[in-house]
Amino acid sequence: MSLIVQKYGGSSLADADSIKRVARRIVDTKKAGNSVVVVVSAMGDTTDELLDLAAQVSPAPQAREMDMLLTAGERMSMALVSMAIANLGHSARSYTGSQAGVITDEVHGRAKIIDVTPGRIQQAVDEGHIVIVAGFQGVSQSTNEITTLGRGGSDTTAVALAAAIKADVCEIYTDVDGIFTADPRIVPKAHKIDRITNEEMQEMAAQGAKVLMLRCVEYARRFDLPIHVRSSFSHHEGTWVVNDKEGDTVEDPIIAGVAHDRSEGKITIVGIPDSPGRAAAVFRAVAGAGLNVDMIVQNVSAGEDKRTDISFTVPKDEAPKGVAVLNAMKDELGFDRLHYDDTIGKLSLVGSGMRSNPGISATLFQALADAGINIEMISTSEIRVSVVTSSDELDEAVRLVHTAFGLDADGEAVVYAGTGR
Amino acid sequence: MSLIVQKYGGSSLADADSIKRVARRIVDTKKAGNSVVVVVSAMGDTTDELLDLAAQVSPAPQAREMDMLLTAGERMSMALVSMAIANLGHSARSYTGSQAGVITDEVHGRAKIIDVTPGRIQQAVDEGHIVIVAGFQGVSQSTNEITTLGRGGSDTTAVALAAAIKADVCEIYTDVDGIFTADPRIVPKAHKIDRITNEEMQEMAAQGAKVLMLRCVEYARRFDLPIHVRSSFSHHEGTWVVNDKEGDTVEDPIIAGVAHDRSEGKITIVGIPDSPGRAAAVFRAVAGAGLNVDMIVQNVSAGEDKRTDISFTVPKDEAPKGVAVLNAMKDELGFDRLHYDDTIGKLSLVGSGMRSNPGISATLFQALADAGINIEMISTSEIRVSVVTSSDELDEAVRLVHTAFGLDADGEAVVYAGTGR
Repeated sequence: MSLIVQKYGGSSLADADSIKRVARRIVDTKKAGNSVVVVVSAMGDTTDELLDLAAQVSPAPQAREMDMLLTAGERMSMALVSMAIANLGHSARSYTGSQAGVITDEVHGRAKIIDVTPGRIQQAVDEGHIVIVAGFQGVSQSTNEITTLGRGGSDTTAVALAAAIKADVCEIYTDVDGIFTADPRIVPKAHKIDRITNEEMQEMAAQGAKVLMLRCVEYARRFDLPIHVRSSFSHHEGTWVVNDKEGDTVEDPIIAGVAHDRSEGKITIVGIPDSPGRAAAVFRAVAGAGLNVDMIVQNVSAGEDKRTDISFTVPKDEAPKGVAVLNAMKDELGFDRLHYDDTIGKLSLVGSGMRSNPGISATLFQALADAGINIEMISTSEIRVSVVTSSDELDEAVRLVHTAFGLDADGEAVVYAGTGR
Repeated sequence: MSLIVQKYGGSSLADADSIKRVARRIVDTKKAGNSVVVVVSAMGDTTDELLDLAAQVSPAPQAREMDMLLTAGERMSMALVSMAIANLGHSARSYTGSQAGVITDEVHGRAKIIDVTPGRIQQAVDEGHIVIVAGFQGVSQSTNEITTLGRGGSDTTAVALAAAIKADVCEIYTDVDGIFTADPRIVPKAHKIDRITNEEMQEMAAQGAKVLMLRCVEYARRFDLPIHVRSSFSHHEGTWVVNDKEGDTVEDPIIAGVAHDRSEGKITIVGIPDSPGRAAAVFRAVAGAGLNVDMIVQNVSAGEDKRTDISFTVPKDEAPKGVAVLNAMKDELGFDRLHYDDTIGKLSLVGSGMRSNPGISATLFQALADAGINIEMISTSEIRVSVVTSSDELDEAVRLVHTAFGLDADGEAVVYAGTGR
């Protein structure tokens, strides 16, 4: 008998029939002899409908009240799932984030979980109930106010709760069969990954793979909790996200997958003096404005006046603030002008096998060069290579790289290797 | 500067435009120099939509989960009202029943408020915020579970909260101009009552007047809190419900109004032995089944075998249980048969002037007799006379009595008197 946490997203809870289907699935898990704790998102379009109502009454609603409003969504879905389970003859009890002991910081709209005190949940499980918990929400430790974790926060709720009650596995139910080697809408030959390490999944999520949110994977890694990402519309085995245990398997592929991201723009500071401390001043100003800088490129300075260009990428919605902050410091920093480009795309190749396989970057760059795709920026980590291209060429780049590394479903696996990962 | 509690019902909060209109009204009250605490119901049809969703997933939802589901309704409306107020440049904060300190017993679906601990609300008021509180809901003292007070419970929330924070007045906003001498849909000549005592209002509410719920009036009476029932669609003065202060006014009418009620049915036990303790056994059984008995009539026994009939009225939805319980005791109680009639109606004439004006009942009975309307049952209190007629004849009876006691808007006030009420 296992203790299983299941998370169902809004697309699995679109209407009364979907809720009844999910309830049957939950009851099946219980009947197989497991204890079950379920985390739910708001039903289908509920969140969008609530956002629409808020927009109708105010152009700039308070973050505190927005959290109060949006948390009604999971409240409805959790009560309905609980009712549907009871109707199948099993005992179910629903709990809000606050009741479930999901303690967060006080940042409305994108709070971070800082503790989970699952006493009430644990007791209900011990008493044999199926427990339903509202995802995406918590209560702040300092102010005792209702908070939300931001979109995708229900996954984090599920993993954090699973860690707190020492669950055997956290199953994330979604509308796709698992994690794919690339977005199947762009790469038709992308295939489902059976098993991926937490470390790789973290890089994939950070680089734009949308199935699992970064924070949720970080949580699972920290608590050594296996995640099983699978479809609520089938009974297929999905993707297991597990901790990387040295030598666990010997024939895993070097490359896990190709992520892509169109959410960033590039700010270039043109003609800034190449003197010590100048770059530090730039990024101090940018950080002070709360911008999340991703990639940075500083050109080698040219000419007699020792001037250079610095480019960096930030989320598109933060870019206007960055441009404003830097322009206000134009004289102080001494640059010629700013340039902002929102037509860039980022491709990231992720795989823990890279550590022991040199030449991955070279293969990547060659594949893009052969197709005439220009690389604007490059950054790497131990298990990732990311490149920025023009937004137009990103889809093609993703397909080319997917093929070049033998990830295509019916292609040959040319870059598999027996590394001791 | 006063401390004012305002309550807005669902019909005043039907959509985004209504919410913005209510927000303006609240802000006007604040700008006039008052502190304002607002209690809101769920928006327009929200509760019905949630009930419909529940019915789709389960024919018999758990009461606990139903409360969890329904409380989402006020959560949405309170956040939206708060947003709309902030958009008018005033600071507003919303609180759930639980956060507002509305402590109830543990009866899901029709919990009773047993305490209000308004510390958080009081602090927010002291800090100058407009405070919005979810009506209809609370948290149980013993189990720490979310509860609802039953339909109409938002009025009770408002009055209980007003009493707890020692508000100067509780304004109940609704879609009519106040309390009327009779239901204007039945009696076109009914007129708005300017001022009614708590005691009279309690009788009116208990006898079917739907504008204010009984428990809310009881609360206001206990805490000597004036209620002002008025329309959110106009700025007219509404009806003041106030405590009866001896000799306060000398020309108030004897009769406050005529209430009517079609929600009850009549159970008759035919041919039960008229021996001591038999009636007690009947009503012990009925009370044991949780039925709320209203009126009782026992006929004088006739014939040699000393058998009699006992009739009593109960809410229609409780009647089947009552019939079942009594039928199960048929042999024990020794009656011939049961008869159930759900085509009855009750008319109640209410007025504190009755105390010092004998002959009110006679006038009432005469008016009905003149019209050939048969009276099936009678009950009286100090300030009320109620009669049961057939359901068909109820509307006509209400109109006749309204006229007979001079309550018609353009009629002569024939039964006014200078009594020291």
